Amino acid sequence: MAGSTFGTIFLISTWGESHGKAIGVVIDGCPAGLALDESDIQPFLNRRKPGQSVYSTPRKEDDVVEILSGIFEGRTTGTPISMIVYNKTQQSKDYSEIASYYRPGHADYTFDAKYGFRDYRGGGRSSGRETIARVAAGAVAIKILNQLGITFTTYTRSIGDIEIDPARFDVEEIFNNKLYMPDAEAAIRAGNYVIEMTKEHDSVGGQIESIIKGLPAGIGDTVFEKLDANLAKAAMSIGAVKAVEIGDGIAASRLSGSINNDGFQIKDGSISKRSNHAGGILGGMSDGSDIILRTSFKATPSILKNQLTVNKNNTEIEVSIKGRHDPIIVPRAVVVVESMAAITVLDALLLNMTATMEGIARFYS
Amino acid sequence: MAGSTFGTIFLISTWGESHGKAIGVVIDGCPAGLALDESDIQPFLNRRKPGQSVYSTPRKEDDVVEILSGIFEGRTTGTPISMIVYNKTQQSKDYSEIASYYRPGHADYTFDAKYGFRDYRGGGRSSGRETIARVAAGAVAIKILNQLGITFTTYTRSIGDIEIDPARFDVEEIFNNKLYMPDAEAAIRAGNYVIEMTKEHDSVGGQIESIIKGLPAGIGDTVFEKLDANLAKAAMSIGAVKAVEIGDGIAASRLSGSINNDGFQIKDGSISKRSNHAGGILGGMSDGSDIILRTSFKATPSILKNQLTVNKNNTEIEVSIKGRHDPIIVPRAVVVVESMAAITVLDALLLNMTATMEGIARFYS
Amino acid sequence: MAGSTFGTIFLISTWGESHGKAIGVVIDGCPAGLALDESDIQPFLNRRKPGQSVYSTPRKEDDVVEILSGIFEGRTTGTPISMIVYNKTQQSKDYSEIASYYRPGHADYTFDAKYGFRDYRGGGRSSGRETIARVAAGAVAIKILNQLGITFTTYTRSIGDIEIDPARFDVEEIFNNKLYMPDAEAAIRAGNYVIEMTKEHDSVGGQIESIIKGLPAGIGDTVFEKLDANLAKAAMSIGAVKAVEIGDGIAASRLSGSINNDGFQIKDGSISKRSNHAGGILGGMSDGSDIILRTSFKATPSILKNQLTVNKNNTEIEVSIKGRHDPIIVPRAVVVVESMAAITVLDALLLNMTATMEGIARFYS
Amino acid sequence: MAGSTFGTIFLISTWGESHGKAIGVVIDGCPAGLALDESDIQPFLNRRKPGQSVYSTPRKEDDVVEILSGIFEGRTTGTPISMIVYNKTQQSKDYSEIASYYRPGHADYTFDAKYGFRDYRGGGRSSGRETIARVAAGAVAIKILNQLGITFTTYTRSIGDIEIDPARFDVEEIFNNKLYMPDAEAAIRAGNYVIEMTKEHDSVGGQIESIIKGLPAGIGDTVFEKLDANLAKAAMSIGAVKAVEIGDGIAASRLSGSINNDGFQIKDGSISKRSNHAGGILGGMSDGSDIILRTSFKATPSILKNQLTVNKNNTEIEVSIKGRHDPIIVPRAVVVVESMAAITVLDALLLNMTATMEGIARFYS
Repeated sequence: MAGSTFGTIFLISTWGESHGKAIGVVIDGCPAGLALDESDIQPFLNRRKPGQSVYSTPRKEDDVVEILSGIFEGRTTGTPISMIVYNKTQQSKDYSEIASYYRPGHADYTFDAKYGFRDYRGGGRSSGRETIARVAAGAVAIKILNQLGITFTTYTRSIGDIEIDPARFDVEEIFNNKLYMPDAEAAIRAGNYVIEMTKEHDSVGGQIESIIKGLPAGIGDTVFEKLDANLAKAAMSIGAVKAVEIGDGIAASRLSGSINNDGFQIKDGSISKRSNHAGGILGGMSDGSDIILRTSFKATPSILKNQLTVNKNNTEIEVSIKGRHDPIIVPRAVVVVESMAAITVLDALLLNMTATMEGIARFYS
Repeated sequence: MAGSTFGTIFLISTWGESHGKAIGVVIDGCPAGLALDESDIQPFLNRRKPGQSVYSTPRKEDDVVEILSGIFEGRTTGTPISMIVYNKTQQSKDYSEIASYYRPGHADYTFDAKYGFRDYRGGGRSSGRETIARVAAGAVAIKILNQLGITFTTYTRSIGDIEIDPARFDVEEIFNNKLYMPDAEAAIRAGNYVIEMTKEHDSVGGQIESIIKGLPAGIGDTVFEKLDANLAKAAMSIGAVKAVEIGDGIAASRLSGSINNDGFQIKDGSISKRSNHAGGILGGMSDGSDIILRTSFKATPSILKNQLTVNKNNTEIEVSIKGRHDPIIVPRAVVVVESMAAITVLDALLLNMTATMEGIARFYS
Repeated sequence: MAGSTFGTIFLISTWGESHGKAIGVVIDGCPAGLALDESDIQPFLNRRKPGQSVYSTPRKEDDVVEILSGIFEGRTTGTPISMIVYNKTQQSKDYSEIASYYRPGHADYTFDAKYGFRDYRGGGRSSGRETIARVAAGAVAIKILNQLGITFTTYTRSIGDIEIDPARFDVEEIFNNKLYMPDAEAAIRAGNYVIEMTKEHDSVGGQIESIIKGLPAGIGDTVFEKLDANLAKAAMSIGAVKAVEIGDGIAASRLSGSINNDGFQIKDGSISKRSNHAGGILGGMSDGSDIILRTSFKATPSILKNQLTVNKNNTEIEVSIKGRHDPIIVPRAVVVVESMAAITVLDALLLNMTATMEGIARFYS
Repeated sequence: MAGSTFGTIFLISTWGESHGKAIGVVIDGCPAGLALDESDIQPFLNRRKPGQSVYSTPRKEDDVVEILSGIFEGRTTGTPISMIVYNKTQQSKDYSEIASYYRPGHADYTFDAKYGFRDYRGGGRSSGRETIARVAAGAVAIKILNQLGITFTTYTRSIGDIEIDPARFDVEEIFNNKLYMPDAEAAIRAGNYVIEMTKEHDSVGGQIESIIKGLPAGIGDTVFEKLDANLAKAAMSIGAVKAVEIGDGIAASRLSGSINNDGFQIKDGSISKRSNHAGGILGGMSDGSDIILRTSFKATPSILKNQLTVNKNNTEIEVSIKGRHDPIIVPRAVVVVESMAAITVLDALLLNMTATMEGIARFYS
């Protein structure tokens, strides 16, 4: 059963394990004529790299991307783009202990249940390193979308109970702090909270929000291929994500219709909405407002604190997960969410080109 | 662009508009040998029928399903099952007013933006009647899954701010009240709230929860085809859904790892989890616990209360949406969520058969 | 396993058995804004209707198509188009004999091998009536393609050993004879041959050729989604087809490179080919010349002549297939081949819109 | 538009250009538990390697495969298998001449028509080197199928007009001659013919036949996913293929029904066919007999002989294609056809596991 392939027109196929030789992705369906080289991809990978702050694992992973195909004289040719990142720094450490039991909150048990055995080195295919491939593909999608006037702003919205304050929202601040929060004050409090929980040998979760600007109205479809449905799948397919919201999300279930409905208005000569509870999607299609996607991540399951679990001999044991783990994965996941959102939006945009006879006739005239 | 087709092995293709001749679905890929006739489908359609209580539109829709193909001597043959429900009661009322403006919270504007025009009669393809086709297909999926020991319990978890109380949770109560709430007391309060809001010419949202029992561990995939990712898409593809959660969902983002992780234990001689914050899915695969899926619906956008909007002449106007609309769609959507969840789980279960050489060799021996 | 769904953007899902209630198709992904009603479809269905000549079964099948969805005010809306043809004239005859044994050349045995049982009435899903759905969808594809300047000419190329003579090729003649041969003289000889074989209680095969004009160069893809690969699948998916050729086809395997290669030239100021051995496709993509697709059909397997076979009691028996069968299916299959070719070409044309950044940017500017 | 991805359950995604850094494939959906390393793949790649005889290009390509993912402790894990073959020996020769004009019989013109430019070095993505990826994936499919008792015999059936003589058919001979013909005498004549044509600066085509043994009856589907339809697509997707036949193929169109039909018999206590005109497929499903697939290849388009064509300045010119090209590609393509057939059959076999309730219930019991 194939499970590492995503998309329809802009189709990505990812591969690689945490402690295998390499991680990679093939993009099948990238339009021809896009100027592209590794320098377009690397900055995105750097955003997810560990070891950049006290809030992430001190592991050093020197994730350098190489493009192996699909480019000629600096431009995409329309043929598959294969990208690879070698796993350079994995240590040949002893995994026999971790192989012997099921870590709570991890895929160890489910992997064994499905396949009968697993690559237990560093989580194997279920490792966060798998997202390198998503980010490499996402960087390409974002470059294409940017050229069409569509932009992404993604940031940490909350860590534990500490949320950003909309009144202090400052887009410039996002890259100023290591937690990627658009609120300097919340970032300091959240940072302290993470450090405190780390000291307690515990870990922390949080929320990521993406704002997509510039998408024309009418992108997405009416029934199963709703833009929000595909964004939900894209986001929920990221490890540790437990909830996905569009616009007001859960809060919308508590509002009355008269409050939640966004009235239309004429502004600057064209139609827009007076508010954006809907998060930019109506009936599965973009409505011209900003798309708002919110994703909730559970706390890192690997903690030093003792936990109860069982080993492969069916014996109950107490374990402490050693190793250099992120106390929180949210900051590093910001670029992963952005990448998955971009891949999804690009695919919808490409599919939309075939929606009307008028558009098709115009294209081929 | 095709947007009304869902699934891989158990593939459904739905069609039909609110005020067209009929609504229907083709199931391509239903296994052969299932005893099936209309009496397996009709009870599910009856659960979503309007006009059953004061909480739903007094419109009478006599939705009778007919199976047109794929059955021979009472059993499925492995060929496509085509099901149809004729739209009997649509009135030839005057839609010229509704055609002239964009209803807030509806797909009117996005439909026009995408296609240049729309079938404005009763919402056309974006009508809630579209879900008839999902429920008909879901009934088949549920019958198959039941035979494999997998069951679904779905109910209203909250309406507006009124949530069920876990201490009063009573599965028998679900079908005792017209809101499908498993808490008789909450159902009374919620009912009063809906009536009150209806009097105010307003509408109400809420949450639906599904519990899936009996699914073996290991169903779903590790990366993009995670079981939770596909459940998220399935649920978010239902009109008016704005959020999807698995297990503790958003709350998981606030818990520390030591609390959120579900330790494993040995119970009755086999491995299980001590708690179920994860909602039955780890690393994209079922873990043997109950699958918990929670879906948040916005309030019905059609309200009698005056709203600001614009018409097709680009003039700002005030409108009141007349007609017999549901003040809340949540109770009728319970069976829709259950259907989409079942279709998704069945597809994952079928795909899982090809996961290992051992399973394949055993099958063909 | 889903097997009755075809295409990517223009996706069709067919259903129905020979002696079930109806046959139908859902087109998911038809562009919006196409003027369409039943009168666009019916003439194509009439071309495949039986009972039109001495060369086909005298069975009368009054195949009247009805469109159930996807049209509003005479135009396609972009939502699924459901079409249905009721099976009006099937007799409630006794099928117990045919149910008891395996007809040579039919799918009886393979159906039982796969599913354990079968709908034996008139071939069930493996009946030629299944192609009604393909033709209904094909009629829509052809209408779209015609509006883009792409046309189809399809005819019988040979019957048994009797081939059309290129020197006498006359496109006007195709609809002048009941065998759809573009050579009046060959048509007479072929007609006599069919009548003779019918008298001998035997049946006849033949070849169908499609010429597609007006397709721009560059449609199709380089590797697996080659235009010829998809045409081959489309054609071979029609019952009784045993070979598919593009251009010179098999003959190309006997020619030397210097003869088979089509040199390019400048004609009327633009590039074209000096010959068309390639049948209009180079490297999987259309080259601007006519696309030539040739399909070979075996003789109708149902014959009155005695044949050896086995029954379900594993006993060898001799059988004579009674009933009103076509002595040759080729003439009726002409429109089926044309339909499948059109569906394939349209899908490739729509997919091609996303091939280049320049095209995408132009579309969204 | 994605065009380098093939399959449903056993899904392959290929990438790489002739003169890029590498060629590769990702297999997404390989079952877990298969013992696999490079030594399973390399012998298949060696069968397609050039420079092995006077009948193929003297170019040396040292195509060494490396597995990058999906294997743990010698077995497949169920996660994607990424394989890479570096392009070691491409020379940095001057391609400016070949870039300036359109080679007859090649994809140069269609590539430019589609994308506006092309990677002209050695054919780019349209090079025969692309098939390295197919063969690497095919080797895995064949290993799986062999373990299930399904075997492949593939050979050259004809070169130019020289066909093998069934009376001299000797399976042992296939690997004894460099043309992979199962008839030593035909191989000598064909070899002489190729040498003669090479001296004339011309090239030669031919036919490849695959015999698939051991496939159980009932594999494949009834309508679009017919086993023969998918084999036709698989075969026609190989560069230079112009025709695909199943069983008697084109000859079947000339036979009467009474001759072409294969009667059933009881032999060794079970049902089989008395003959195999059908090539092992009835109604799209395997019938338990050998599957016979015949593929016709055109002559290599690159020839030293002068040809007329046009250059990018729209001027007619005469060209001679220099370089070390195969005078015939058929012998090297034998393993490519076998690979594509195996990938197709494996996918059908895996899909078939979900065909019946009985099979599903048995699997999950």
